Amino acid sequence: MGHEGIKGVKGNLLPLPTPFDGDGGLDEQLLADMAAYYVERGVESLFVFGSYGQGPAMSVEQRKRGLEVIMKRVHGKVPIVVHIGAVDPYTSRDLGLHARAEGADAVGLVGPYYYSDRSEAEILEHVKFLDDALKMPLFFYNNPPYQGYAVTPARLKKMREVAPRLFGAKLAMGSIDDAMGYRDALGPDFGLFVLASCLYPGLRCGVTGTVSPPLTLAPDLGVALVRAVEQGNDLEAGRLQEAVIRFHAVFIRLGKSCGRSAYTQGLRHMGFPLKQYPRWPTPAMPEGAKAEVNRAIDEANTAVKKSQ
Amino acid sequence: MGHEGIKGVKGNLLPLPTPFDGDGGLDEQLLADMAAYYVERGVESLFVFGSYGQGPAMSVEQRKRGLEVIMKRVHGKVPIVVHIGAVDPYTSRDLGLHARAEGADAVGLVGPYYYSDRSEAEILEHVKFLDDALKMPLFFYNNPPYQGYAVTPARLKKMREVAPRLFGAKLAMGSIDDAMGYRDALGPDFGLFVLASCLYPGLRCGVTGTVSPPLTLAPDLGVALVRAVEQGNDLEAGRLQEAVIRFHAVFIRLGKSCGRSAYTQGLRHMGFPLKQYPRWPTPAMPEGAKAEVNRAIDEANTAVKKSQ
Amino acid sequence: MGHEGIKGVKGNLLPLPTPFDGDGGLDEQLLADMAAYYVERGVESLFVFGSYGQGPAMSVEQRKRGLEVIMKRVHGKVPIVVHIGAVDPYTSRDLGLHARAEGADAVGLVGPYYYSDRSEAEILEHVKFLDDALKMPLFFYNNPPYQGYAVTPARLKKMREVAPRLFGAKLAMGSIDDAMGYRDALGPDFGLFVLASCLYPGLRCGVTGTVSPPLTLAPDLGVALVRAVEQGNDLEAGRLQEAVIRFHAVFIRLGKSCGRSAYTQGLRHMGFPLKQYPRWPTPAMPEGAKAEVNRAIDEANTAVKKSQ
Amino acid sequence: MGHEGIKGVKGNLLPLPTPFDGDGGLDEQLLADMAAYYVERGVESLFVFGSYGQGPAMSVEQRKRGLEVIMKRVHGKVPIVVHIGAVDPYTSRDLGLHARAEGADAVGLVGPYYYSDRSEAEILEHVKFLDDALKMPLFFYNNPPYQGYAVTPARLKKMREVAPRLFGAKLAMGSIDDAMGYRDALGPDFGLFVLASCLYPGLRCGVTGTVSPPLTLAPDLGVALVRAVEQGNDLEAGRLQEAVIRFHAVFIRLGKSCGRSAYTQGLRHMGFPLKQYPRWPTPAMPEGAKAEVNRAIDEANTAVKKSQ
Repeated sequence: MGHEGIKGVKGNLLPLPTPFDGDGGLDEQLLADMAAYYVERGVESLFVFGSYGQGPAMSVEQRKRGLEVIMKRVHGKVPIVVHIGAVDPYTSRDLGLHARAEGADAVGLVGPYYYSDRSEAEILEHVKFLDDALKMPLFFYNNPPYQGYAVTPARLKKMREVAPRLFGAKLAMGSIDDAMGYRDALGPDFGLFVLASCLYPGLRCGVTGTVSPPLTLAPDLGVALVRAVEQGNDLEAGRLQEAVIRFHAVFIRLGKSCGRSAYTQGLRHMGFPLKQYPRWPTPAMPEGAKAEVNRAIDEANTAVKKSQ
Repeated sequence: MGHEGIKGVKGNLLPLPTPFDGDGGLDEQLLADMAAYYVERGVESLFVFGSYGQGPAMSVEQRKRGLEVIMKRVHGKVPIVVHIGAVDPYTSRDLGLHARAEGADAVGLVGPYYYSDRSEAEILEHVKFLDDALKMPLFFYNNPPYQGYAVTPARLKKMREVAPRLFGAKLAMGSIDDAMGYRDALGPDFGLFVLASCLYPGLRCGVTGTVSPPLTLAPDLGVALVRAVEQGNDLEAGRLQEAVIRFHAVFIRLGKSCGRSAYTQGLRHMGFPLKQYPRWPTPAMPEGAKAEVNRAIDEANTAVKKSQ
Repeated sequence: MGHEGIKGVKGNLLPLPTPFDGDGGLDEQLLADMAAYYVERGVESLFVFGSYGQGPAMSVEQRKRGLEVIMKRVHGKVPIVVHIGAVDPYTSRDLGLHARAEGADAVGLVGPYYYSDRSEAEILEHVKFLDDALKMPLFFYNNPPYQGYAVTPARLKKMREVAPRLFGAKLAMGSIDDAMGYRDALGPDFGLFVLASCLYPGLRCGVTGTVSPPLTLAPDLGVALVRAVEQGNDLEAGRLQEAVIRFHAVFIRLGKSCGRSAYTQGLRHMGFPLKQYPRWPTPAMPEGAKAEVNRAIDEANTAVKKSQ
Repeated sequence: MGHEGIKGVKGNLLPLPTPFDGDGGLDEQLLADMAAYYVERGVESLFVFGSYGQGPAMSVEQRKRGLEVIMKRVHGKVPIVVHIGAVDPYTSRDLGLHARAEGADAVGLVGPYYYSDRSEAEILEHVKFLDDALKMPLFFYNNPPYQGYAVTPARLKKMREVAPRLFGAKLAMGSIDDAMGYRDALGPDFGLFVLASCLYPGLRCGVTGTVSPPLTLAPDLGVALVRAVEQGNDLEAGRLQEAVIRFHAVFIRLGKSCGRSAYTQGLRHMGFPLKQYPRWPTPAMPEGAKAEVNRAIDEANTAVKKSQ
């Protein structure tokens, strides 16, 4: 990839969960502890305040204060990509200038959302505005249903033409086939992050890593998989990829019936004293579903241990 | 409808455009002048900071400050519905408590956006949370592509069950047939606002009014149409409805090629010294398209004069 | 419009229902009787074997035989547009040559369906192939969900460029605003047929008529509405349009819960000895819903009588 | 899976291409030769007259005659699944009874198409009707955009409840995550066929095989991949899966710009004297794109040779 500022943004670009205090306030202590925990487990880099990290559901002040807390605790141990996506470009500029001042390694942005009928010209102007204003590495977070429109490989290529600091993208959904379409359009130097369920074949075919919410509940599994691939250990890679797919399946299924509560339960099962996640009221999760979450995490950890 | 707090929210619930200063700051003077202008033209009520009013693209401080400016100038002459929709419920609660303190007549909310995969239970919790916290009349603004999911008649009915202060809804799109589906599900006392292109047949069939961005460029036309229907003047109503449809067609067509710039041009043609609208960079509009906007506005005004 | 072959394709282009015998066979006697009935009620023209007419669910032999039965009975009293849409162009060509030989006035076609990922070039080739092969007036039936892709105004214009015999289109859904977009793109000589719920404002704004399944259950209502508009009787037109909207609403609502059985019930209530409709198994309709159908038909007929 | 009639429907369930004569007629000789060729290359089973096999674009007579030609040539060497999907159930019943009489091992069906607003009850009645009438193994071919609606894991489970002979399904799109959702709902005995780009991880996680149009252009690659997995050769499986993904990427990309012509070119490059495919007019393919197709096929064959 070659951009000075983004060395190390690869492998597990872990999407940090953001904890709240029960009435929407930030739980700063736990946020710092979680950041430190994932760094200690060996993830290569952190993606903070994306969708899983609740950035769009937080106030601007919370996004700034939260970043300060994280930067202080992580202290340069891994690169940090800060999501600054918003409806309008001024909010993103404000967040981006703050992130740069705090020493973040790159900023990420989902396509400007809500006004889903923006023309392509308007979307390109938005990205160019931020590239011009921030003058730091940009990472695109492509989430069609959340932003309200598609960013196809051809459109992402146009974005990079007007925003030359764009060095990579997270594909929030889609198969390995879809990822290959972006690879063909953007070229081998562009960083692509895919779903963890196709990480091993993806890494073989030139993708850069994954931004995986489920793997926040089993970070050792993601770390082990990336290492197996890096070491050319196909036997292990195949086995660990299978474990990731089986783990993924549980959260996709429970996500449909219980929403983000499956993650709340998982983070608690890992030992985090989580008061509130996400930042909106959610119905209680059935006990049976909680047990499934716990079991899936335990099995993922067992799968990792076999590697050692 | 019978809710004490919302008497007069009917007919032209005019979506107030919000002007900016060229770098995303609020143009307070012009905002106040525009509010006063529309009240003077005879619109029945104002809808402020909805999508057309740029609420979701503004900072929380701007939405609060803007409302203060409007309330001061309008001074109770017409009812005001303030849009407080956001990604998370805490931001909406903050905006809603401010609106209530300022004396707004009702608050409006689009479905919580961005996280478009929220379950129905989560959406209902969101609306209930605000109804409980604000204890004032609620108006739903149904915009499926902007919020990211449908709110069918059946779902809107469930919303009213958990949020009993919900007294009406704006349907941002759809035909008169769609509106009738909401009428059947919600009953005759629920206020329904439809597209201006089906306002005359709609009013005949029990809808309450329209929230029409195009009619901000020809407010006299909307006012005249509502009066013709109220006075049982079918000849005039038919003629004015035709003029509205032809006027609409221009903005729908130009909206597809030029985005919101058609409105910027129209507001300037009306004489407003508008520096920036919308609150994001947009490509320049071709001169030919500008001329079309001007001509459409002039023709709409000619159509109204024939009534007098 | 000016095409010799299509004089009279306007107003109520009535979509003829097709009756079956209980095991998918054609009920020829009843089909002929129904065609004769609608002609007698005064509809301006017939659209046969479209979606409502079950063409795509019939065998090629049934579509041919059915047309022969209809042509024989109608005997030139009104123009007949025969739907020949299919997945492939050879089937449509076969049906079209037969329709021409039988003396049909025009052929209609929905966009080639099933393979919804056809490129625009393939769709245009399909239409051009049929225009070249059939050399007779073509009518496009635009049904995006059934054909699997949109045919926007711009695309329909391209179709007419490669298929110059294309004289009009039915818009199976959408508002009057959508219709105006087609009018702007195709010009005033292109025949446009809209939903009956916006027929009166549509006719004022230059549309040609409607192809309305609900009005097959109350043909007098559609005939009366078109006459009121033609005679410049706005008072009557406004009143009858209201009746059409209220009538429509019942079938849209029941269509969602009961599918096409609402039409089966309605046709039986009109006195037709209908054994099977549509041409596939459907669950039984609740008695309460049947009563709603009957009541709506009776009310529509009462509304018409007030005109006389 | 255990159904007597479907033993051997696994691994490469090869979707047989169907050749035409230039004016939509069947090229029977080439069809038979192609069937024989794939059997000789070692594919485990054949899927005939699906979407890639052009079934929905063929006449009923062609689908019957084509099957007779194939059955005669293949002569029981591999199991054959015949796609009988149609708009209406009578056509499918007719095709299914013919397939059974000819000795086909199973019938496949896409959801009844065109009338995409069918209720779930109507879709279930359709499948039940065919299960009752045909009394032979049924295979569901899930293609949401072609059939016009989703068949989720929950809905497919309901289908199996009313049609107990349903033994498996092809998922025409989606990631391995999506496949796992069907696995969870349908259980381990239900045969699932996924995209070839996730075949290796899929087989590890319990899927049954793939129905892959691109692999018709490189059948040895698909056969080698399935064998590598069966033999527990993870090193080879990883390498061959990578080759499949890279091969896939070419056809997905060219499919977007050139439609099905990429397959036409590929089949010709393999040496088949193909006059027409698909069964509708298509624009000519640029020479550069043809060269890409040829190169991709050659590279795929090189990748296979490394295995031997």
